[in-house]
Amino acid sequence: MQPSELSLVAAADAIRQRRLSPVELVDSVLDRVERVEPRLGAYVSVAAGQARRSARQAEREAAAGRFRGPLHGIPMALKDLIDVAGAPTTASSRVRAGDRAADHDSTVAARLAAAGAVLVGKTHTHEFAYGLTTPQTRNAWNRERVAGGSSGGSAVAVAAGTATFALGTDTGGSIRVPAALNGVVGLKPTYGLVPRHGVTSLSWSLDHVGPITRTVADAAAVLAVLAGHDPRDPASLPHTPGDPRPAAYPDATGDTDLTGLRVGVPRNHYFDHVDPQVEAAVRHAVGRLETLGARLVEVEIPMTRYLRATQWGLMVPEATAYHERTLRTVPELYGADVRVLLEAGELMTAGDYLRAQRARTLMRREWARMLERVDVIAAPTVPTTAVPADRQTVTWSDGTVESVSDAYVRLSAPANITGVPALSVPVGHDGAGMPIGMQLLGHPLGEAVLLRVGHAYERTAPARELAPVA
Amino acid sequence: MQPSELSLVAAADAIRQRRLSPVELVDSVLDRVERVEPRLGAYVSVAAGQARRSARQAEREAAAGRFRGPLHGIPMALKDLIDVAGAPTTASSRVRAGDRAADHDSTVAARLAAAGAVLVGKTHTHEFAYGLTTPQTRNAWNRERVAGGSSGGSAVAVAAGTATFALGTDTGGSIRVPAALNGVVGLKPTYGLVPRHGVTSLSWSLDHVGPITRTVADAAAVLAVLAGHDPRDPASLPHTPGDPRPAAYPDATGDTDLTGLRVGVPRNHYFDHVDPQVEAAVRHAVGRLETLGARLVEVEIPMTRYLRATQWGLMVPEATAYHERTLRTVPELYGADVRVLLEAGELMTAGDYLRAQRARTLMRREWARMLERVDVIAAPTVPTTAVPADRQTVTWSDGTVESVSDAYVRLSAPANITGVPALSVPVGHDGAGMPIGMQLLGHPLGEAVLLRVGHAYERTAPARELAPVA
Repeated sequence: MQPSELSLVAAADAIRQRRLSPVELVDSVLDRVERVEPRLGAYVSVAAGQARRSARQAEREAAAGRFRGPLHGIPMALKDLIDVAGAPTTASSRVRAGDRAADHDSTVAARLAAAGAVLVGKTHTHEFAYGLTTPQTRNAWNRERVAGGSSGGSAVAVAAGTATFALGTDTGGSIRVPAALNGVVGLKPTYGLVPRHGVTSLSWSLDHVGPITRTVADAAAVLAVLAGHDPRDPASLPHTPGDPRPAAYPDATGDTDLTGLRVGVPRNHYFDHVDPQVEAAVRHAVGRLETLGARLVEVEIPMTRYLRATQWGLMVPEATAYHERTLRTVPELYGADVRVLLEAGELMTAGDYLRAQRARTLMRREWARMLERVDVIAAPTVPTTAVPADRQTVTWSDGTVESVSDAYVRLSAPANITGVPALSVPVGHDGAGMPIGMQLLGHPLGEAVLLRVGHAYERTAPARELAPVA
Repeated sequence: MQPSELSLVAAADAIRQRRLSPVELVDSVLDRVERVEPRLGAYVSVAAGQARRSARQAEREAAAGRFRGPLHGIPMALKDLIDVAGAPTTASSRVRAGDRAADHDSTVAARLAAAGAVLVGKTHTHEFAYGLTTPQTRNAWNRERVAGGSSGGSAVAVAAGTATFALGTDTGGSIRVPAALNGVVGLKPTYGLVPRHGVTSLSWSLDHVGPITRTVADAAAVLAVLAGHDPRDPASLPHTPGDPRPAAYPDATGDTDLTGLRVGVPRNHYFDHVDPQVEAAVRHAVGRLETLGARLVEVEIPMTRYLRATQWGLMVPEATAYHERTLRTVPELYGADVRVLLEAGELMTAGDYLRAQRARTLMRREWARMLERVDVIAAPTVPTTAVPADRQTVTWSDGTVESVSDAYVRLSAPANITGVPALSVPVGHDGAGMPIGMQLLGHPLGEAVLLRVGHAYERTAPARELAPVA
């Protein structure tokens, strides 16, 4: 087994026990980059030299017995919306072509660097995170399938072993969708828990930053470094007793007993227009939680007919406001799909936006009421696995036709609108060998519970391997 | 001296010491209502019978030695935007004519009732709080002058002795402006400190509920009852160590030493286009604070050129969204001034609103930076005293002409946009005998400091009497 195949937690243990040096690990990952990245297109840029320098530095510190923590010497990839001092932030867009490098690290980049993580490179996003396919990037399991988006590059890098972990951003599912489509773990934290200072915005009232990893314990280790107040993000939550603490997260040896845990199973919305193989895999995984002691509780998802209008009613005008200037000066530099959405935003009235805001307020209240009855909700992450790259629509058994982006957003958006945390864990593959994801949704600041449940499930499932990169 | 002339704190002491019975006090106030209310038009409705019943109840409890606290048996008026179970909430609008009574108390009405306060009646507001004059009501000091608004009825009632204290709401100055124009104390608390559940909304991101009283210590006593979390107001702040506690408020005997307190004196905005008599009175009062030990610090108010666009850019679309349905069904029932503002809101784009939202976010940050250098800021509440009721504009010495509403909002809006607390205290009269107000602005949740400073000033000033109701 190559070091590049190790989970974050396994690699960290090996480094702490001096069985593995950060240099070996980074070399192994960079070697994997050389072999598979040309077939994947996950990276905008790879900083091999800088990564090796950081690894040697981590190795010197390790030799001196100084460990910065569980990320010490661990190779990571950052979605290219996240500022890293000295590197441009391209947002995978021609609009940013030739922009100068960022002067400062984003809050998350600074926290990860301080924790000893080693940056391998910046990964592709659907242009400005405004889409769910990431066309520059191939799915790690099948080059003919979409990577998913908008954090497609990050999910593919983690699945393919070209990064041990990565960060993504999630406005309507952009961490969870590509994580599910590439068979890795993705966590969208509670709104406001992870600061967004220095991260390019898509829709500030819906944007989240979070980890993409190979295991749930890995996600817990990364979240512990990312979480915490930063006044430079106006939506950043103050420190509260509710804050997840590293101690509250499972470690690789965490127990799997879920006795007494109430798992909500949606009676509506989350299993409507879902591929039968996806539904079967998720229901099977839910059965696993039951055998671990969890009690299943049927829940009714409130206000579902307002979900789509609310998500788009908030996102479209906020995105247009952010791009206001460049949309006027260099509209031709945007991709056609993104430009049409940005221009649509110019036609919306304040009333349209405020109706969406008020619907969100009511939805938050109704969700809080529903969540009183359960500890987590278990559901599919996406209704279908990765579609062929040229596919524009999905046709359901009842003849309904849905755009691919609507299908991929449909089950993810509720956690963005309400701000509740959501974790996607792999629960098998479909007949074509494409990964299937289960989504666990929790109470605000209930990350520790989500991670415990996801970890418990994971430990009962067969160990996963890297994507074959076929 | 009649009981109706007593301050809240003085009346409460007299009741606790059995020198005054709640029935005597309420009778004295109702007697005053009979004599002066016909000349003022402060009340939409007076509930004399109910008030007397409540007073007798309070008297029985007092006789039994049971005191509900500092508001026990104290007569109050509530702005008629505030729901009281069993009474209609007219918002002083024909749109609400014939509406049935409210089924439940608003949070603030319920808290005041539980604290033993006795409701005298509901007071006039500028229609739906959307204006700064309250045309139905006369100024307590001069019937030819505007009462100010939108909480004009509440301020006039307190100034004229027809209520011992009152509640108002403040979206762009609607508590502080009429308090200043009628020579009483008005407090706009920190955004989110006092719950708005059951209070008719003008602009939910700018709306505040707060007390109008005769003294600062009175305002402290009322705030102690109003403050505290209510999940039914989505903007209600969670309980935090920063919450003002009654203990932190001054009592009538609080000391006046301000040694070491840093008082910010604006170098820009707050003294531009201000009547010379108003400026002189406020600067004199600031000098008083200095003689009490305060250190004066010159401060630069940030982003002032965005203030007007931000206030209106947030308020107009939010107000229109709230009135969406009735604006379509019964537009003719709105007053002309309010209807034109509501219809203007229909023309605003989401981009207009979001620009205002983003400007507010930056303004909050800049204000927080400025406030690091001071404990409070002292400034005029309004640039001119109460204008003649038929006056539409104010002309400044340099020839600039400003609408009356713009003039009255100009110095109040910053505290609504940023959410910081602001207290208006009387600091004398102009040559025409009209009251002048000084505004103290503080840190978020810094009410205790504002109240301490306002109280210290007040104790050094000559005792005030009721308005003559000339």
